[in-house]
Amino acid sequence: VGISGAYVFLNGEIMPAEEASISPFDAGLLRGYAVFDLLQTLDGRPFMVREHLQRFRNSAELLGLQVPLPNDEIVSVMERLLELNGHADATVRMVLTGGVSPDGMHFDPLTPTFFILTHELFEVPGSVYEYGTKLLAAEHQRELPEAKTTGYLTWLLNHARLEEEGAMDLLYHSGGVISEAATASFYVVRDGKILAPGTGVLWGTVGVRVLEAAADEFDVVYRDISLVEAIQADECILTSSVRGVVPVTRIDEHVIAEGTVGPVTRRLMQIFKSLTDEPAT
Amino acid sequence: VGISGAYVFLNGEIMPAEEASISPFDAGLLRGYAVFDLLQTLDGRPFMVREHLQRFRNSAELLGLQVPLPNDEIVSVMERLLELNGHADATVRMVLTGGVSPDGMHFDPLTPTFFILTHELFEVPGSVYEYGTKLLAAEHQRELPEAKTTGYLTWLLNHARLEEEGAMDLLYHSGGVISEAATASFYVVRDGKILAPGTGVLWGTVGVRVLEAAADEFDVVYRDISLVEAIQADECILTSSVRGVVPVTRIDEHVIAEGTVGPVTRRLMQIFKSLTDEPAT
Repeated sequence: VGISGAYVFLNGEIMPAEEASISPFDAGLLRGYAVFDLLQTLDGRPFMVREHLQRFRNSAELLGLQVPLPNDEIVSVMERLLELNGHADATVRMVLTGGVSPDGMHFDPLTPTFFILTHELFEVPGSVYEYGTKLLAAEHQRELPEAKTTGYLTWLLNHARLEEEGAMDLLYHSGGVISEAATASFYVVRDGKILAPGTGVLWGTVGVRVLEAAADEFDVVYRDISLVEAIQADECILTSSVRGVVPVTRIDEHVIAEGTVGPVTRRLMQIFKSLTDEPAT
Repeated sequence: VGISGAYVFLNGEIMPAEEASISPFDAGLLRGYAVFDLLQTLDGRPFMVREHLQRFRNSAELLGLQVPLPNDEIVSVMERLLELNGHADATVRMVLTGGVSPDGMHFDPLTPTFFILTHELFEVPGSVYEYGTKLLAAEHQRELPEAKTTGYLTWLLNHARLEEEGAMDLLYHSGGVISEAATASFYVVRDGKILAPGTGVLWGTVGVRVLEAAADEFDVVYRDISLVEAIQADECILTSSVRGVVPVTRIDEHVIAEGTVGPVTRRLMQIFKSLTDEPAT
């Protein structure tokens, strides 16, 4: 078992990864015209797959593309791939591009490139759930933020710095207003209310599901949140498909409140745990 | 002869395009971690190839990557490809990505993916040089603008609108300040001076060369230029490797000055013509 699966799905077929051939003329490669989605397995099965498929279709639509298979067939492919690749636990990645573009400009949206890969799940150190994690603020606004596109340049260019500083992710902000983390959603707690960025962000599958489940207990306010408000918040929270609900206790050199895991975050972590205990895929 | 060449160069070898296989795990595809450069041929030979190779290496360096071949070998590959592909005139595209990333996160910068493609040159209608062209203003700031990366989402999403409106390109602006066109450089003439955006833009190979050649005749001022200044300018000018010097006479619904090709633009067009008459590759 390697980091990536020995088998992949590409344009209708499951095949050994080394036989999977993407054209150098692919618009996903030449022009970054591509969307993806990523989910994790739970007990070996795709977790929250309906939400991820819905989001993947939303992303595709924003690029004028259509996912070329119905949901049940995609789930079957995922299950077959997971079986063949034999990871302990895995992340499953669906990618859809504009397809082959002979002139690097035009392509036929009816012949997209669609592939599914699996990767060995990377372990999140348990300490981050106990003591919280750190984010690094970075000035950036994702292009077409409502779509999960493949543009991760700023994140990858900061990878070494994240590792050096022991930070989990970047916190993107633009014009003083925060949007989301590079690979996760981000929420703030102030005066008992949960604040969520209202626009210009990707639908966070775990975040939305957890906030829905918590709607009886907490007010959730969707509005712009400044970076200063985040730094001065009572609690900061990151949510992600592969990391669940994570307390954020530091942003750059700033400690959030007392620097410990707050009560709202703890409750959302509990709610997420109850979702994973009874997965309703 | 097709729109794209029958042969391509990939990781050290010239091969038929249908045998050129990029891994679905390539960081250029999964994460948009890729740079490129594009030049045109003149009389069948690569034009301004030194400048494009220099810019390609600059772009690579900004991503922590190295172009894995010396310039003379790259030029030989281009010439061999052009011979094999037999285009009348062509654009030549070099692409460098982070290489294969098994986990979609890490990759070895010492094993990048490097390929070279050729495309049939698309003809620019001669009328744009006589009567000028139109740009559509679009709020956008390219990620890592000093590198020629593959992120062209905003441009491609506006492709249909550009064609409908008979516009040649998008004019990017952010916070009221213009940067460059989506696929070209952009300059403004006011009171006999040429204004050029000073930072946050790609090095325009044709633009820089033409402005250097014109340095005896015109003052060139590098500074921020607002969108309003561009619209109210005496002349607006687009430069590009595949289009040369192009007069811009309209931005959205605004006509620039009298809507005709101005004297500074005409002089720069002449200078570019003299460069193509005696190509110093």
